[in-house]
Amino acid sequence: MAKQNIYDNEIFFENYRKLRKNAGNANDVFEIPALLSLLPDLCGKKVLDLGCGFGEHCRLLADMGAASITGIDISEKMLDIARRENSSPKTEYINMPMEELNRLDGEYDLAVSSLALHYVEDLDGVVKNIRSLLTDGGLFVFSQENPICTSYSGGDRWTRDENGSKLYLNLKDYSVEGMRSTQWFVDNVQKYHRMFSTIVNILAQNGFVIEKMIEPVPTKEILEKFPKYEDLRHKPDFLLVRAKKQ
Amino acid sequence: MAKQNIYDNEIFFENYRKLRKNAGNANDVFEIPALLSLLPDLCGKKVLDLGCGFGEHCRLLADMGAASITGIDISEKMLDIARRENSSPKTEYINMPMEELNRLDGEYDLAVSSLALHYVEDLDGVVKNIRSLLTDGGLFVFSQENPICTSYSGGDRWTRDENGSKLYLNLKDYSVEGMRSTQWFVDNVQKYHRMFSTIVNILAQNGFVIEKMIEPVPTKEILEKFPKYEDLRHKPDFLLVRAKKQ
Repeated sequence: MAKQNIYDNEIFFENYRKLRKNAGNANDVFEIPALLSLLPDLCGKKVLDLGCGFGEHCRLLADMGAASITGIDISEKMLDIARRENSSPKTEYINMPMEELNRLDGEYDLAVSSLALHYVEDLDGVVKNIRSLLTDGGLFVFSQENPICTSYSGGDRWTRDENGSKLYLNLKDYSVEGMRSTQWFVDNVQKYHRMFSTIVNILAQNGFVIEKMIEPVPTKEILEKFPKYEDLRHKPDFLLVRAKKQ
Repeated sequence: MAKQNIYDNEIFFENYRKLRKNAGNANDVFEIPALLSLLPDLCGKKVLDLGCGFGEHCRLLADMGAASITGIDISEKMLDIARRENSSPKTEYINMPMEELNRLDGEYDLAVSSLALHYVEDLDGVVKNIRSLLTDGGLFVFSQENPICTSYSGGDRWTRDENGSKLYLNLKDYSVEGMRSTQWFVDNVQKYHRMFSTIVNILAQNGFVIEKMIEPVPTKEILEKFPKYEDLRHKPDFLLVRAKKQ
């Protein structure tokens, strides 16, 4: 089955890059702080970053004292930037879809994945491979779009009042798992919706103990600075998990 | 803080009783089969049933071979029926809110709770007490309303088409946890909304390993028999969890 490589699409890539440079983008405000809060002390740790993209997380992991960081990504375009902007003597970038993790050698203390797993159809297969690459007691820390978001299957996502304010999310098809083809900068961006229970079960079945979950919501301070995040009261954008290999 | 005892309200009680006698009610079609699927072999096991209500689950647990069953419930009215309709030499019923579990002695192999925990404000306190009553490796199996349902905070729950069919759920305030006062047969039925992540974290922090989660959705056969459950494609009604004391 062909793996989607949307980040090598020119239009998608340029738009995504711009989005991530916006001050107060959701990654910077919510996802990165939540992900960092789930990380262990990294000193001396061998780390794998799945879907490393521009390598920003790899750079952070290096700065935080990791002994080595292996970033893999399906998009050569993303890795070009990663190598240019976020390289270090401890960091290696490999162009590889995460469905082919079994090609990797070595043993890692920590696997990290930021906002990439919702692009993967066979999550169970990926988690199996992560398990086999981790040391005993090794950690798997990841973020993905919240299941309440990945369920989106087209149509109006929100109902708004006469002033355009969001009243509530139009929640459709949460219980219908599988591929969602959506428009995000370009047509036909493919994501995979899984219910909360499915994500938990895939981890449990593969011998991971869930230690912590975060669905980030804004603090008062964040809302004062970025009132646009008021709508997160209805649905968090992200889901983050720290799980331990048992 | 006063514990709610809505099941001792005459009107609520009679209406709930009628609801549960309807053929094809959601408890019989989804909740009970899912709960049973999470149970271990019960032979010789000491079981605690939290919020046992009419004692239907206690009877099932006795029939399935449990050595002893202790059912506790805050509602004396419910326990009256439990004692009349679902007693056995192995079954004991105790009138007690589950917030006072620490008054119990003994050690249990399994704690079960069916659709009661969303009435509890201090879930962390209840889970702590359950942990201290369980043997090492003991199981905690429970169902509650799905967080997508408990988030409901008033107003129209659904958006319908011109024929009255449900198009989508109006999801509001999922990220705002806490008490919800709703109308269900009577005014001011109090439930507590917690996000998925909070439920998972309370279990994890109290030394429980989540082994399996179920958000029940109808099979084709169920939909043919009960077309009304078509709306579960948008949101499951229940969340079930099997967790093991570590």
